[in-house]
Amino acid sequence: MSSSKYIEQAVNEIASLPGVGRKTALRYVLNLLGRSKEDIDRFTNAIADLNKNVQFCANCHNISDEKICSICANPGRDSKIICVVEDIRDVMAIEATHQFKGRYHVLGGKISPMDGIGPGDLNIGTLIERSANPEVKELILALSPTMEGDTTAYFIFKKFEKHGVEISTLSRGVAIGDELQYADEITLGRSILQRTPYEKALQ
Amino acid sequence: MSSSKYIEQAVNEIASLPGVGRKTALRYVLNLLGRSKEDIDRFTNAIADLNKNVQFCANCHNISDEKICSICANPGRDSKIICVVEDIRDVMAIEATHQFKGRYHVLGGKISPMDGIGPGDLNIGTLIERSANPEVKELILALSPTMEGDTTAYFIFKKFEKHGVEISTLSRGVAIGDELQYADEITLGRSILQRTPYEKALQ
Repeated sequence: MSSSKYIEQAVNEIASLPGVGRKTALRYVLNLLGRSKEDIDRFTNAIADLNKNVQFCANCHNISDEKICSICANPGRDSKIICVVEDIRDVMAIEATHQFKGRYHVLGGKISPMDGIGPGDLNIGTLIERSANPEVKELILALSPTMEGDTTAYFIFKKFEKHGVEISTLSRGVAIGDELQYADEITLGRSILQRTPYEKALQ
Repeated sequence: MSSSKYIEQAVNEIASLPGVGRKTALRYVLNLLGRSKEDIDRFTNAIADLNKNVQFCANCHNISDEKICSICANPGRDSKIICVVEDIRDVMAIEATHQFKGRYHVLGGKISPMDGIGPGDLNIGTLIERSANPEVKELILALSPTMEGDTTAYFIFKKFEKHGVEISTLSRGVAIGDELQYADEITLGRSILQRTPYEKALQ
């Protein structure tokens, strides 16, 4: 592809990123090629630092710079509610809404027999330990509305059924800004069955 | 976005690549996060090596691991024909066809007054020097069929008009595998005007 073995090596490495083909990798490499030594040092150090410094929170399995993540360590967060999510991107997405002031628990995946992932591969044991604390009153199952997400939610719901902890899930319905006529039938049907009192929708 | 300043830093750096937004950068970072130290070292070293080892060929301005690139240094390449291209990706694309056995000259851009790029910003001076060698018989102007590419080609054509060197350009026409009905009018029109003897098309 190229007359330089260094370019070839860099293309191979960058093409190992998810969704990056060799043409895209080459585009990135040619961009990096035009940069100063300081720029490249900052770039490579930022990546090396990930490996050296980022760990998983011992409590909730979120990514963290310390042993306990900044959310678990924050006394201002409500420890009565735990929001159970699939992975750390979901934590970031929910944090970005600024609507949740409780704590998280990252499962690290969802039950998917097709991919050989069973309940034992997820952080469910530590969720049970955390919920044994009488302070915990509610688990919000914030999992994707897919077959795997629903299976995982049902599994956790069954585990906690007789546990005395309230289990809730995200509301499903027509997305804000969506045209009704383009909403899918299942979502639209459910949004009628689970209709909300108007005063509550105003909140 | 994230509770880790290291992730934040890595996302910022990776989002500086062309066409990479913060969501894509985060996807790459989360992928890198799951790798071993050896993997990360290989990844960062490949990028650092670019800066340390890759240079531009003193003769044709192609990328090279040595002072003179492997194409210029190869005595098997025909030094009578120089293929003039915009950037090193074009060298790679033409090399991948295995149809050209001459040498290259990389201009490093194209004349584009809108972007403030004039003839003085391109490697045209060194092209004139190289063509002063009586060995050089033909320049192939392999530039993009855009307004900027055509302007650059015309500028070089005018420079070399009285120089005694033959100037050619890539053939334009319907792309192989294309349906005639979907070809644009200008390309189709030109492919009729510049029709090729059938025997020649068989080559």
